[in-house]
Amino acid sequence: MLKKRIYLDNAATTPVDPAVLKEMMPYFMKKFGNPFSAHFFGQEAKVAIDNAREQVANFLGASSEEVFFTSGATESNNWTVFGVLKSVKTSAAAEKPGSIFVPHIITSAFEHHCVLNSSLASEKAGAKLSLIKPNVDGVIDAQDIAKEITDQTILISIMYVNNEVGTIQPIKEIGEIIKNAKADRLAKGNKMPLYFHTDAVQAANYLKCDVDYLGVDLLTLSAHKIYGPKGAGCLYVRRGTRIAPSQYGGEQESNLRAGTHNVPGIVGMGKAVSLIEKHKKGLPKMKKLRDKLFAEIMKISGTQINGSREFRAPNNANFSFRGIEGESLIISLDMAGIAASTGSACSSASLAPSHVLTSMGISPEVAHASLRLTLGKDATEQEINYVIKELPPIIERLRKISGRR
Amino acid sequence: MLKKRIYLDNAATTPVDPAVLKEMMPYFMKKFGNPFSAHFFGQEAKVAIDNAREQVANFLGASSEEVFFTSGATESNNWTVFGVLKSVKTSAAAEKPGSIFVPHIITSAFEHHCVLNSSLASEKAGAKLSLIKPNVDGVIDAQDIAKEITDQTILISIMYVNNEVGTIQPIKEIGEIIKNAKADRLAKGNKMPLYFHTDAVQAANYLKCDVDYLGVDLLTLSAHKIYGPKGAGCLYVRRGTRIAPSQYGGEQESNLRAGTHNVPGIVGMGKAVSLIEKHKKGLPKMKKLRDKLFAEIMKISGTQINGSREFRAPNNANFSFRGIEGESLIISLDMAGIAASTGSACSSASLAPSHVLTSMGISPEVAHASLRLTLGKDATEQEINYVIKELPPIIERLRKISGRR
Repeated sequence: MLKKRIYLDNAATTPVDPAVLKEMMPYFMKKFGNPFSAHFFGQEAKVAIDNAREQVANFLGASSEEVFFTSGATESNNWTVFGVLKSVKTSAAAEKPGSIFVPHIITSAFEHHCVLNSSLASEKAGAKLSLIKPNVDGVIDAQDIAKEITDQTILISIMYVNNEVGTIQPIKEIGEIIKNAKADRLAKGNKMPLYFHTDAVQAANYLKCDVDYLGVDLLTLSAHKIYGPKGAGCLYVRRGTRIAPSQYGGEQESNLRAGTHNVPGIVGMGKAVSLIEKHKKGLPKMKKLRDKLFAEIMKISGTQINGSREFRAPNNANFSFRGIEGESLIISLDMAGIAASTGSACSSASLAPSHVLTSMGISPEVAHASLRLTLGKDATEQEINYVIKELPPIIERLRKISGRR
Repeated sequence: MLKKRIYLDNAATTPVDPAVLKEMMPYFMKKFGNPFSAHFFGQEAKVAIDNAREQVANFLGASSEEVFFTSGATESNNWTVFGVLKSVKTSAAAEKPGSIFVPHIITSAFEHHCVLNSSLASEKAGAKLSLIKPNVDGVIDAQDIAKEITDQTILISIMYVNNEVGTIQPIKEIGEIIKNAKADRLAKGNKMPLYFHTDAVQAANYLKCDVDYLGVDLLTLSAHKIYGPKGAGCLYVRRGTRIAPSQYGGEQESNLRAGTHNVPGIVGMGKAVSLIEKHKKGLPKMKKLRDKLFAEIMKISGTQINGSREFRAPNNANFSFRGIEGESLIISLDMAGIAASTGSACSSASLAPSHVLTSMGISPEVAHASLRLTLGKDATEQEINYVIKELPPIIERLRKISGRR
């Protein structure tokens, strides 16, 4: 019998690492100052956030002045889209008063909703939007992006790892294409900026996030996907990038993100980032367990793996089971003590089929039949064996109920 | 000799109450689910945020569907200004395509920068802005607001208690004026909404925040000013109020504020709000200590109290000392183990004189000479006596150095 519930939904959120929580603890009751206060309590808090900023900058190969703390990835991604647009529109209007400038954004059709819906809202407000579809394996072709770039393109935002299928996007390759496009523009005397953003939320635990290596101008991280606390995230903004503030008010974060710093959250984020390298030592084991899931679960008839097996983060497994309704499967698994998801947590209140799977050309019916299992750093073979044992009879039972096989 | 540093900067931030932290603790490592996940871990987290929402709603005399959790007061106040403006502009454009609508905002000249700078940014983007000046005592005259309301006014935002001088604004009286203005509009067939917002961040510990009593449509709270955690706040939005989302993405907070919930932060905010009534029992003692500060510090020659003594929160004392530079005073006090501020923490990086004090007609020189002492719920007579003993020789020494008396 199962002693402990098994959590296989680490793409939705991760538990805070004990070492992270330990680092945060003094900042609630003891070192509780406001980093913007001149006195001892304030300076104590300021040192803590400076340290966290340094930790994040080291991870990204960036300068600490290029790291801006936010309330999470949704804020960082909204800020990227709206902030770049607003800033570039303002300066375009200042340079050529009266001219109508239609900014162009390129993003993928299977981004997280916080990039997608900000981009759609911008389109509604007058911007031009190109949505690049991934291939059937859930991978974007860098050349598809190259083809879309025009003289009015100001922002290209492509996620590093997809949150539902775990597929890795060719960020470095896209970065090189954009670098060339920038050089072409300069040669033509076009001063319009062209920025490359990547949402690296689901990549940080597994992949190299050096901003120069990737060739990105903006990059988003979230603390609670890397064993840090909820309510903390950051946006890397390359020096010289034009971006309007995320929040107006006090002078925090170089006047770009007003609001009292979430000191414990920021400290936790810094610590979580600093632990990533150490945790990476466990990735080969994680991949082995995930591959065992692939091998064993594929033995169930009428099962498919969604997304590339080759270009894929080691924590992610995503299946579709013929004749199964994903929501019922999640509930049945939960009753068996296994926490899993169908699609992302952020869309779980919606009954629409996953926009990620449908963008890959998967039918709505098959998309509805999907199961996402995402392993955490402490996943054990025993847990995976339990899932392998429990899942087949659940699928069989649900198929019997639905009368589909 | 002083055993422990004395913290008299509770308007900048407060330590987390032990009972609040205790309530938050399970949600970092154990009950760490994403409230939008369908499984056990998610539902456990959902119950927690539902409970917190209920706690806040009870405090405000509101329905829980009218409480929206944010990352803090800066977000709530930015959201109010930009969200109302965007929503009303969009619907105005939809009703009369092609018409030019100039929305009008009324706020005070001594609001917190997060309201002020959002309003100024909106003015830059085309809105009309009226800034109401307080009187010399730091109190807004409700009639001054009445005079400014036009048919195009859509938002009136007046803080409940000023963060620097602690003065209480006549929110209920303003609420009644706005109610009448709304009725007049309806009678004239003008369907343009008129919303009343109050930033109650500095009032929540001391004053009645019932939204119907006050007559407000929107109200902002911050957790870290009421012994809750940093990084959590909320916006009350009266049912039927038109407001565009604060963040786009997932379907959290009724589709108005996307982003994974900061579960421990929200739980802490709910608990902190639920403790306010209990803490109010200590207010008479707090007021007595603050009044002792007033009486004793006024014995120093060339000293004035900034702001009304009558309409004032019981935690706040704000002085100006002739011939003193506030920044030097803060540093000297800090060396004596006393944490205080000159103006608000959010402006402390700036060298400009307090916009609050200058809006009250106080000269820049006198504004620069200000000291804010804000008591917390655990302030003791011993601490206040220590300040009363230490402050006069510090003032004398600084005056000697500056050569001004």
